[in-house]
Order: sequence, then structure tokens, then C-alpha cells
Amino acid sequence: MAEDAGLRERLAALESRVLQLEDHVAILRLVNRWGPAVDTGSSDAAAGLWDDDEVLESDLSHLQGPAAVAEMVESEGQQALIRQGCAHVQSAPVVTVDGDHATAITYSQVYLHSENGYDVWRVSANQWECRRTAGGWRLTRRVNRVIDGSPAPHTILVGALDGP
Amino acid sequence: MAEDAGLRERLAALESRVLQLEDHVAILRLVNRWGPAVDTGSSDAAAGLWDDDEVLESDLSHLQGPAAVAEMVESEGQQALIRQGCAHVQSAPVVTVDGDHATAITYSQVYLHSENGYDVWRVSANQWECRRTAGGWRLTRRVNRVIDGSPAPHTILVGALDGP
Amino acid sequence: MAEDAGLRERLAALESRVLQLEDHVAILRLVNRWGPAVDTGSSDAAAGLWDDDEVLESDLSHLQGPAAVAEMVESEGQQALIRQGCAHVQSAPVVTVDGDHATAITYSQVYLHSENGYDVWRVSANQWECRRTAGGWRLTRRVNRVIDGSPAPHTILVGALDGP
Repeated sequence: MAEDAGLRERLAALESRVLQLEDHVAILRLVNRWGPAVDTGSSDAAAGLWDDDEVLESDLSHLQGPAAVAEMVESEGQQALIRQGCAHVQSAPVVTVDGDHATAITYSQVYLHSENGYDVWRVSANQWECRRTAGGWRLTRRVNRVIDGSPAPHTILVGALDGP
Repeated sequence: MAEDAGLRERLAALESRVLQLEDHVAILRLVNRWGPAVDTGSSDAAAGLWDDDEVLESDLSHLQGPAAVAEMVESEGQQALIRQGCAHVQSAPVVTVDGDHATAITYSQVYLHSENGYDVWRVSANQWECRRTAGGWRLTRRVNRVIDGSPAPHTILVGALDGP
Repeated sequence: MAEDAGLRERLAALESRVLQLEDHVAILRLVNRWGPAVDTGSSDAAAGLWDDDEVLESDLSHLQGPAAVAEMVESEGQQALIRQGCAHVQSAPVVTVDGDHATAITYSQVYLHSENGYDVWRVSANQWECRRTAGGWRLTRRVNRVIDGSPAPHTILVGALDGP
């Protein structure tokens, strides 16, 4: 009996640890889908990564809600980048999962096709906030700050240094 | 008795979830070994990542079978890149495991050493197909399309947007 | 009874596999924190990633012990990079965990803000050695070799090709 209870407890502990690992993988997947969505002009898929009350904030734009994300992807500015050949690449994130919320800190690089190869147009610090919903993990907030010597990206990157 | 059956079922479910996570890690490892193999001219190791019926397809080459991969690594073209200093870097992939098959979508960048640092020579979309074999996961297909404004890389990248 | 023993064995095997996966995630986290620490001048956090007897070795420096790491982060050289805008980005590593030790092989890129976007200043091969301590995983050694056509980075990168 006591041993059975011990097994049950160990199993429950393990289930919770496995869920944590699965959450980690789900967050990677979510963050790594952003590039493919915006670089192919897949406005519906790009919007579908976000929860309804999301905010996407950078020096280039302030987008509230999935419809605004879709509109940005379809905008002439983004379409021009796609015609030129663009790649929005995230670095492997530092992920912190806390129950039904998670944060991922990444560097992002935007490469643009040019005459002699590729230019590195933007290198930024990114804070991605995520929420577990009935339909799986969704993005709720992204703050993007260009790394140009100003302190703004630092306030994002130090978030990767918190916690154990 | 009934409780024992319950424990057994939970354990089996957990074993299957852990295998899925291990597969994910194995795919990362497989895809991330390609760069070190080709950048060091390790033709045997490069060939060993692939299953016998593999196809490696890009605008630069169409390689069928591990021997063709080894030959490409030993080719004068690849050796010249290695002498110059080259780095084939994959982005963190979007991995989808389905039983004994898996797909990983990545961006790849090829950096070449130059007078004043590094040039970004190629930025591409990559579809990696993998198979579980008796010897572990192996690559069966890679399609590589340069991101230059043409639609070819888009058909690869949208593969990262499928599924849950 | 025999069945109970079977359950117990399966549970123990699973616990060990989950720990291996958690170690993998911990190593990713450790390696991916280096960039945010040095790019924000967080000398304490940068030093805190390393164990007391660590060695950090590159063509630029040879640092022994966390205090030397902190000093490097606070040095005029690093501070000048930070003022210009720098991003030390690691590729997704090839991680090998062996009990209380682990190795991660990465490519690193250092981007520097410039007039027209970003220059790729350094692309290197990195070997990170890690140790499980009472306070969690810590770095014990990093060897960084610039990829410039010389054989030094190759001896690091081939480490990613060892093992299963």
C-alpha cells in the first residue's frame, strides 16, 4: 500500500516534469513559426500564432490583435521585403515556463537578399510572452528592440538572466 | 487491481510522451551535425547522417545516396570553401515527429570568411526529412532553396505552419 | 509482486530518461545566456554562469575563474562593443550529456551595428564544457576558435560528430 502510494507520487511528479518539457518544445515551435509565417506572406497563419488580446511592439509598429498582425503581413512594406527575399531568423530562445505562462528571450536577425549575397538589416532583442489556451500555446506579446547601442534592448536581454 | 491498471496506463502514456521528446532531441542533433560535417570536410561523417536512399536537392546539386554526399564534401568546390573559412549554420528547426518519420524546417546561413569579417553568402529554406532506422534517426531528404524573392523557398517554409 | 517490480523498473528507467532531457534543456539555457550577459555588460551574471575553476580560451583572451570573466565584461574593449551595439548569438548546440558532465558544440556569430545595418565581425566554433554542481549546471570551459580557414576550429567542430 505504502509502496503503491510511492509509485503514484513518483508517477505524478514525472508527469509534471514531462509536461514542463513538452511546454518548452511547444514554445520553441511557436516562436520559430513566426519567421516562416511573415517571410511567406502567410497572414492567416501569422495571425493564428497570437491570442486575441496580443500586443506586438517594435520601433517599426505597434500591432494590437491578430487582425492587425495579418494586415501588417499583407502591407506593401512587408510584401516588398518578401519580393526582395527576406529571412526573419530567431536564435535558440531562453525559455521560462511558469504554469500557463511562458517567456522566451531571443535575438532575431533579418537577412535581405542583395546583389552579392545577403545584408543583415536588423539584429534585435525579443521578448515573447506566451499563454496556454484551450487551443494550445499562443503568443500574447512581443517586444522587439533593435540592438544599436541604446539601452532599450538591454532591458529585454537581462530577462534571460533571471531565475535558476 | 483497477488502480494498478490505471498506473500501468499512465506509465505507458508517459513512456510514449518521453519517446516523442527524445525523438525531437535526436532530430535536432541530426540536423545540427550537418554543418560541422561539411565545414570540416568530414566526408564519412557527413555521409553517415543519411540513409541509403537519400536525396539531397538544391540549386547547386542533386545528390543521391551517401557516397554522392561524401564526394560533394571532398569536391574541389567544397574544399575551396573550407580553405576560405565557411560556416553552414542552421536555425533552430520546427520539428514534426510522426511515428518513425520526422520533418524539420530550418533557415540556413552560410558565412564565408572575408577581408573585413564575414560575408553572408547564402540564406536558404530547408526541409529535412528523417527516418527512424535500426541505427537511430537518419536523414532521407533535404530540399534547400535560396531565399531570393522567388516562390521556391516559400513552399518549404509554409511546411512549418502545418499542424497543431 | 513481479508486476509491481516491473512497474518500478519502468518508472526508474523513465525517471532517468526525463532527467537526461532536463539536462539537455538546462545546457541549452546555460549556453544561450552567455550572449545576453556579455551584450548587456552584466558582469555578475556572466561570471555566475561559470564554475570556480573555469577556463575561457580564445584568440582574444585566456580567462581563468569567474572574476576574470567579470573583468573582461567590464573592460573598455567589451564596453566599446556594447556602446556600438553588439549581439553574441549562438547556434542551436549539439549537446552530449554524460552523467554530471556535458559538452555543447556551437557556431557563434558576433554582429556589430554599423551605418547600413550590421557587420558580421566574428564567426567561430565553440566547445562548451559543463558540470552539474549543487547549484545546477555551470560552465567549466569554453574554447572559441575563429573560422578563418585554419584547422583550429575544425578540431572543435568534429567533436559534434562523435557518438551515436
